[in-house]
Parts: sequence; C-alpha cells; structure tokens
Amino acid sequence: MLKGVAASPGIAIGKVFLYTKKFAEINTQSIDEAMVEDEIAKFENSIKLTKEQIEKIKEKTEREFGKDKAAIFEAHLMLVNDSEFHDSVKNMIKNEHVTADNAVNQVIEQHASMMESLDDKYLKERAVDLRDVGSRIINNLFRIINVNLSELDEKVIIIAKDLTPSDTATMRKEMVLGFATDVGGRTSHTAIMARSLEIPAVVGTGNVTQSVVGGETAIIDGNEGIVIINPDDATLKEYEEKLNKYKMKVEKLKEFKDLPAMTTDGEKSMLAANIGTPNDVEGALKNGAEGIGLFRTEFLYMNRNNFPTEEEQFEAYKYVAEKMNGKPVTIRTLDIGGDKKLPYLNMPDEMNPFLGYRAIRLCLDEKEMFKTQLRALLRASAYGNILIMYPMISSVVEVRKANAILNEVKEELDAKDIKYDKNIKVGVMIEIPSAAVTADIIAKEVDFFSIGTNDLCQYTLAVDRMNEKIKDYYKPFNLAILRLIKNVIDASHKEGIFTAMCGEMAGDPLTTVILLGLGLDEFSMSASSIPTIKNIIRNVSKKKAQEFAKMVMEMSTPDEIEEASRKFLNEITAD
Amino acid sequence: MLKGVAASPGIAIGKVFLYTKKFAEINTQSIDEAMVEDEIAKFENSIKLTKEQIEKIKEKTEREFGKDKAAIFEAHLMLVNDSEFHDSVKNMIKNEHVTADNAVNQVIEQHASMMESLDDKYLKERAVDLRDVGSRIINNLFRIINVNLSELDEKVIIIAKDLTPSDTATMRKEMVLGFATDVGGRTSHTAIMARSLEIPAVVGTGNVTQSVVGGETAIIDGNEGIVIINPDDATLKEYEEKLNKYKMKVEKLKEFKDLPAMTTDGEKSMLAANIGTPNDVEGALKNGAEGIGLFRTEFLYMNRNNFPTEEEQFEAYKYVAEKMNGKPVTIRTLDIGGDKKLPYLNMPDEMNPFLGYRAIRLCLDEKEMFKTQLRALLRASAYGNILIMYPMISSVVEVRKANAILNEVKEELDAKDIKYDKNIKVGVMIEIPSAAVTADIIAKEVDFFSIGTNDLCQYTLAVDRMNEKIKDYYKPFNLAILRLIKNVIDASHKEGIFTAMCGEMAGDPLTTVILLGLGLDEFSMSASSIPTIKNIIRNVSKKKAQEFAKMVMEMSTPDEIEEASRKFLNEITAD
Repeated sequence: MLKGVAASPGIAIGKVFLYTKKFAEINTQSIDEAMVEDEIAKFENSIKLTKEQIEKIKEKTEREFGKDKAAIFEAHLMLVNDSEFHDSVKNMIKNEHVTADNAVNQVIEQHASMMESLDDKYLKERAVDLRDVGSRIINNLFRIINVNLSELDEKVIIIAKDLTPSDTATMRKEMVLGFATDVGGRTSHTAIMARSLEIPAVVGTGNVTQSVVGGETAIIDGNEGIVIINPDDATLKEYEEKLNKYKMKVEKLKEFKDLPAMTTDGEKSMLAANIGTPNDVEGALKNGAEGIGLFRTEFLYMNRNNFPTEEEQFEAYKYVAEKMNGKPVTIRTLDIGGDKKLPYLNMPDEMNPFLGYRAIRLCLDEKEMFKTQLRALLRASAYGNILIMYPMISSVVEVRKANAILNEVKEELDAKDIKYDKNIKVGVMIEIPSAAVTADIIAKEVDFFSIGTNDLCQYTLAVDRMNEKIKDYYKPFNLAILRLIKNVIDASHKEGIFTAMCGEMAGDPLTTVILLGLGLDEFSMSASSIPTIKNIIRNVSKKKAQEFAKMVMEMSTPDEIEEASRKFLNEITAD
Repeated sequence: MLKGVAASPGIAIGKVFLYTKKFAEINTQSIDEAMVEDEIAKFENSIKLTKEQIEKIKEKTEREFGKDKAAIFEAHLMLVNDSEFHDSVKNMIKNEHVTADNAVNQVIEQHASMMESLDDKYLKERAVDLRDVGSRIINNLFRIINVNLSELDEKVIIIAKDLTPSDTATMRKEMVLGFATDVGGRTSHTAIMARSLEIPAVVGTGNVTQSVVGGETAIIDGNEGIVIINPDDATLKEYEEKLNKYKMKVEKLKEFKDLPAMTTDGEKSMLAANIGTPNDVEGALKNGAEGIGLFRTEFLYMNRNNFPTEEEQFEAYKYVAEKMNGKPVTIRTLDIGGDKKLPYLNMPDEMNPFLGYRAIRLCLDEKEMFKTQLRALLRASAYGNILIMYPMISSVVEVRKANAILNEVKEELDAKDIKYDKNIKVGVMIEIPSAAVTADIIAKEVDFFSIGTNDLCQYTLAVDRMNEKIKDYYKPFNLAILRLIKNVIDASHKEGIFTAMCGEMAGDPLTTVILLGLGLDEFSMSASSIPTIKNIIRNVSKKKAQEFAKMVMEMSTPDEIEEASRKFLNEITAD
C-alpha cells in the first residue's frame, strides 16, 4: 500500500499498465572491421521495423482522426525511406568503424542542426521530425519498445513516473481505469487531466513505479490518495464494495443535476465547467454545468506542425457555443508558453518559464496569430453566447493593447459585413498578483473577471506548484490569497461586473463556503466536481457563509483556516 | 556606437579586454593505429601544461588569499599527477583507438559519475573537482585558453556576453575600468555588481562582443547607456572632458557626506548601504552610509567546497559590526537557491528556480547549517549593533519556525554563558507578494521589515527580471507595487516598527520622492548611490513628497507614474 495525493476522486480496480519511457544510450566505442557487416545488417533491420511501426500508426491515426492528422506520419515515412540517408549511415559505419546507433545519431544530428540553423520555419519543424524518426530507429536497434498510450487495447490502470500533456493527449481514454504516478501534486497536469476525464487518480506517491512490474492487480483510491498493489482477497472485496458505494453516491449527486445551485436562503450561484476540447461539452452538460467558465484553446495549437487556420478554430468555437445552446461559453485566448511549447513557434528557452514569455505577452507580439484567433472567436459569437477572456494580464496596459487589437478585428469584420455578437463580453483572468491588487482599475475596462487560482497562488506565494521540494509552501488557504480574492470580487461588484473563478480552488469542496461568503458569482471547475459543489451550496445559507468567511479572514495561518473549513464542511454535509 | 541599458553610472575610457569562454568539442571519431603514439604524446603534453597552470594559480591564490584558500588547487594537482589516471587514458587510446580528448573525457566521466553515485558529500565534491581538471586538460589538448579574470595585469574595460557571480568574485577588481555586456538589464547580476564596485557599466547591448576584437579603445558611458568602440579623436576628447566633469560632480556630491538625509522641512531619513563582503564597508562609510541595510552572507558560502565554519562567519560579522562602530548592521541569513547554487549542498535542478527551494525554505530544512549561522550572528552581536533578517518569508508560519530555531540557539548560548545582544532585533524581507499582503499579521511578530523590491516586482508582476523577452513587463512603477509598498509601510507603523527597503528601487533617483512620501524609514542601496539619493531628499519637503505620492497613486499606468516622477525630479534637482 502506498500513500499519495488524492488527485481525482473515485475508486478503480484493475490490471496495472506500467508506462516507462526508455531512451537508448549511444555506444561511441569504435568497432572491429569484422563487425562492420553486422552493424550494417542491424541498421537495415531497424529501418524495416521502423517503417512497419510508422505505417501502423499512420493507418490507425487515419482511421480514427482522418487523413489530415495522419499526414505527419507520411513525412516520417519519407525520411525512413530516403536512400541517401541509408548510404550516409552505411558509409560512416564502414569508413569510420563506428556502431550503427552512433552513425544514425551523427547523420541525423548533422542534418537536423543544419536545418535548424536556417531561418525557415518549415525546415525547423522538419528537424523535429527528423530527430523523432532518428530516435525511433535507434530505439529499434537496441530493441527498446516504447509503447504508445494510443495503442492500449484493454482496460488498465496506468502507473507512470508522470504523464506529459502529449501522453494524455494521445492516450486511448476509454481504456484507462485510473492513474497513479510517482510525482505531482493536486494541481499537476496529470491530476487536472484525471479530474477532467473523471478518472480516479493518485499522484505524488514517491515510488509507485518501483513497486510494480506490470500486469498485476492494483486498487486506486482517489478519494483517500491510496494505491494498493496485489491486494489480498479481503482487501479486494472491501474495495469492490467501496467502489459500488461510490458509484451510488455519484449517481445520487447527479440526481439534482437540474436543480439550481441555490443556498438555503435562496441565493443562486452559477456553476460552470472548465473544458479542454469541444468533446468535453458532453460531460459538462451531463454534470449540470450552467455554462463553460473556461474553454482552453491550446488543444487547437498543440500536437501539430503549424498554426490552426481561422476556419478550424471557428468550427470548434461554434460547435461549443451551439451545443451549450445560449448558455455562456467563456473562451480563453491562447495561453501558450510556460510549460506548454509549440514546435512551430520560435519560443525561447527560459530559466523561469512560469515568470516568462507566455499567454497574452506572446499574443501581443504575434499579432497575426492573435488576430486570427480573435476573428474566429467573433465569427463564432454569432452562434451562441460567447465571452472572450485574456490570460496573464499584469496591468491595465495589456488590457488596452489587447482590446485595441480586438477593435481592429471588429472593424475589419464590419467592413466585410460579417456578423458577430456586437455586445460580446470581454474579460480577463486575474492570476497575476499585480492584477488582483489593481482590480479596481482593470474593472473599469472589462466586462468580467475570472480568478485563476493556480497561477495566482504560484506567484503570490512564490511557489512553483510542480516543485515537490516546496509543496508545503503552496497553500491556497494562505490569508494573502483570500484577501486578494476578496479584493477582486469587491472591485468587480463596485463596477457592476461579475467575478468567476476557474482555478482548482473553485472545485475544491473545502473552499466553497468561503468563496460563497466572499461573494464569488461563478464557480467553474472540472465537470465531475459540479455535483459535489452544488450539494454544498444547497446545504448552507448565504448568511452563514458570509459569517464563516469573515471568521476565517481573522485567522493567521493556512492550517487554521483549512482546519476550520474541514470542520464546517463536515457539519453541513453530514447525512 | 552601441546603445544598451545604463547599468552603473560613470564614464570609462580604456583598452578592451574581450572575455569569451570557449569549450572544447570532443572528437568521437576513431583513429588509425598510426596516430596512437601522437595522441599519447599530445596527452602527456597537455598534462604538463595543466600542471604548470594549476601551480601558477595555486601560488597566486596562496600569496593573495592565504594557504587556506589555495588548498583546493593542491587537490587539483593530485588528480593531475595521478599515474593510474594517466594509464587509464593511455590504455584507452591504445586499445580502443580513440582520440586523447575522447579518452580523457570518458575516463574522467566514469570516475566522476561513480563518485557522484555514492552517498558521500565529500566524494560528490571531488567529482566537481575532477570535472574541472578534466575540462582544463581537454582545453589544453585543443590549446583553448580561457583567461581567468583574476589574472588581469593591466587596467581594462571588460566586454563579455555576461558575467557570472564566479567571474565577478574572482575578478581582479582594481584592474577593471568598466563593463559592457551583450545581455542583462538594470537588475542583472552584472549591473548590481558594477554599481556595488562603482564601475561604469552598460549592459544589454545585444552584440557588443561581436563588435570588438580586444585591445581596441572603448568608451563606456554608464550614465547614458552608450558604448563606443574605436572612437575618433574628437569623440575621445569629448568623453575625456565628460569624464572630468563627472568626477567633479561625484566629488561635489560627496562633500555633504556627513550631512543628514533631511528634507527641507526637517524630516530625517536613514540612508544605508547594501554590502556583499566585509571589504565593502569601506565604500559604505566613504559614501556616508549611516548603517548597513543589507549585508548579504552568500560570499561566505560560495566559491568553496564546504560549509563555512561558525568561527569564519563570526569573524566576518564581527568585523563589519565593529567597523560600523555602533551603527546598525542588518545581516540577512543565507539566501541561496534560485540562480545561486552551492556545490557542496545537494540542491535540486528546478524548472522555475525563482519559484523554488531557496533561502529560508532551505535553511528551515538544513537546520544545523542554519543554527551555525545564527550562532555566529548572535555571538557577533556582542560587538556592535547587529540586526538579523530572514529572506523569502511567505507567511507568518516561516517567521515562527525561524524564530523558534533562533530561540533554541539563544538558549544554548545562555547555557554556556556566551554573551550576545539580548535585545537583538529580528526582521524579515518583504519580497513575496503574500508577505506584503499580510504585513499586518507578520508585523506583530518581528522588529522590522525590509522590502526587497527586485523579487517583489518579479513575483507580483510574474516577470523574471533576467528574461530579455519580457523586460517591458518588469515595471517597478506598476501601481500594484506601490500599493503593496504602502501597505507594508502602513502596517509596520501601526505596530510601531520600521520599514526599510534594500532592493534596487531604494537607490533609484526616480522613486525616491514617492518612497519618502509613502513614509519609508530607511533606504538601503549600493554605497555609490547614497550621495545622489541624499541630494534628492535634501531638496524636497516631506509634505511635498506626500502630496506627490498621493497624486501618482491615482494614476493607472506605470508610464504615467514614471513620467511624472521624472518631471518632478528634474524640477527639484535643477541647479
């Protein structure tokens, strides 16, 4: 049994899939003349294997996602079949007496660096492809097999050191019962994805990957943060019962999905969902979301080799707006940078990416890219209730700059008589401390706020939330955070606009009453959290919530506030 | 002529010393049998050269800094002379037909990784030495000569891509007329060092290293941020006059070094100096500092292979306290981490070091190290007016933890009847937004605040100040910063304690009047800035400063506030 962070609620019981990535180590020793033919044969064999693998992936991608998405693998195949490349490698093995892996590595690197050094975006992308193919050939030389999560063919519990955005993007989601990882906290990528997919998950276990070999049975208890490997029969039975009970509880919570999130004294809150792709709308509606509080648009830009077209974006935004059928859909403009990079956009390596060139800072520089997105957003606004939201605002200066570009786009659409919502609301994320502190000034120039508590906590407390070493310093219950939230809400109400929250805090049951008491207008969260939060709101009066918020704002340490919240929550939700 | 950031005032005219570091690239191709003897001879030659170099450095270090500091080079020499090492390299060249550099690299790497993998701090340090020596041998194989800045033997202007803390630490300071660098901003390490050493500097020129070959004449205008390479006679003459004029102005400012920093209506401010080593006290006193507002203690821990002893620390703190002769000396406890690492302390690689494991966070974990420093500080407090200051406080929780450890140390000293200042004042850096927002709570448990504006700006604005791409977002004049500063000062006064400031802002003439108006009690800065700031304070009334501060706090953009400050400053300091 291992203890970790309860990252996504629920219980999963199933077979372990141990997901480890291996990388070949190049052998740089020189070889005997006698071995030259062997190495060449090994190389030819690896090329054959690589070709087969890529063809398989290409067919699968074509079948599932269409010809468009599979085109990249066509390019990969061309590289693998390039006879000049074959000759260079073979000659190097023969003339320089090096191993096949060393030769492949050198030939690929020479070409890739050459391509990179040219000032041509297209060739730069090809360098990435070239290296991809190169490592596949080298891995095949050593017979290292890295399983792709898109190739899962039975239901499993994934156990990994950590999962990257590209792992979860390519993962065959319907085959995943649960996650357990060595690293990460409640707000790590893996945790957020697990909640969004409604998959039970435990993260930050320290060494779960060392405790399994794959194929064993495991239990993931995402409520308590527990992983059990090879449970005995009694434990298995116990957890099967727990699983059934949990399923029933979830069903019960969903029963009041169409009831409003109303306090016992009749005050209504808005509960919305955070989504990452158009497909997530279904889950949002299923869980009773009254709107989309955060539609992340990064999915359109990631895992591809070039900017998405205006048309692609328009279709995605329109789809969600129509599906939500008049309910508000808040779409965040591109929030790239930090830990999210695009291969086709020349982005600098940064010493502190979280304090770096990202989101609106990048969009204001890449004006054409930004205008394309704004145009797609405006055009889609004719088909539903779309709100536009800018991320990473540090002062009113960026708001003015972004709005100036938005106005340019509006004028261009007007000139062409293209229809859009002329009253479209424009708001900003409040996730940088300076924006929270000057919310009164920013409030005069926007239609709404949405507090991004994840980043706001990181910056306000100077704690990278991914950094295991200092996770004890990441305290959303720090009084400074609550004061900043109160300041933002008060400033918005003074200007007659509303404040939403789309960070993890909005879906954390422990903070619901405080946020309600501080006057938060909209809670936006992983769809699966909505029933739980609604249940809390329906069990407390606004008056009591206000009193409670006032009380905790007098406490001086995060632990005191957390403890008081836990006690209060237990009181109001006790059956 | 190149334009950059005016990083440190003054004018320098002199010969260019182009400081570039080169690294050898290992040649991994295999060699013919015929070349084996050649490679072995090259290796032996390189060993000889390396030995001579290290001996020379060792002698010089011994002469200048004592036997103690030179011991490390003794260890380096033992490695170079190790015959087992020689044999391994030679055998590898012979048997595996690799180049000498490849062999040295592999042998050194094998040993170093082996040492690192053992859980022994001493051996881990030896791995660092081993790699140092290894790169020196390899560089000598390729005849790459990296000049050490400690070996400068004539007065020069250093032109470099950037200077690291270890460059400036080993640099022979009396030989440096000025700096010009490709990268960096006003608050980069190079800029701060230049101001502290009172050396004119221009940073962030983009490509000054590409514009010189070394040995040419250059002019550094640190007032205007201009670098001129190979000036014509007229320009040279013009700048020689400017240099004279500037020297006269500096002399004039120093004339009132013993006058108080008093406003025209009789309010006194305290002007103190930031220092990095005991030797800096001289400059502080020369410039009329009334105290040390920030004594950084990192110098004791850096550029060495083990923790400083209690005795070494005690001597350094005592020296400064005695030299300052009863004037306050605020000593900051170890602020390591972020961009400053110690080779002998196992520190993690972090994705966002500025949001990471550093300063008090690390000290609270490394309790023995922290206690040693506190013991040295308390013992030294018997010899002068020492104040203790904790860095990177995010909430009152860390203050309580650090004070509990301090009390432990006090009790231990009491038990042994060791004397110290029983009324020693303990304060905290306010450099994390959460601390600024909850200053009222922290104020109840400390004796003073010192606002660290560099980090406070970084976190509040979510901008890494070293990141060139986003330097336009690093705006100390952002209203949020001014509001947080006001909040901190007001909270301190309410509890009857004082607020100092030791960030760059305290020495920036443009902000002096605002800070004065907000009620800042102490300005601590590079010693060389003190006369300039005193001149401003002596030319304005407290009342006018308060009115001005109130006025700018109504403005909404940093540019408006900066512009108003510039105008006001010109009015009051016009001759």
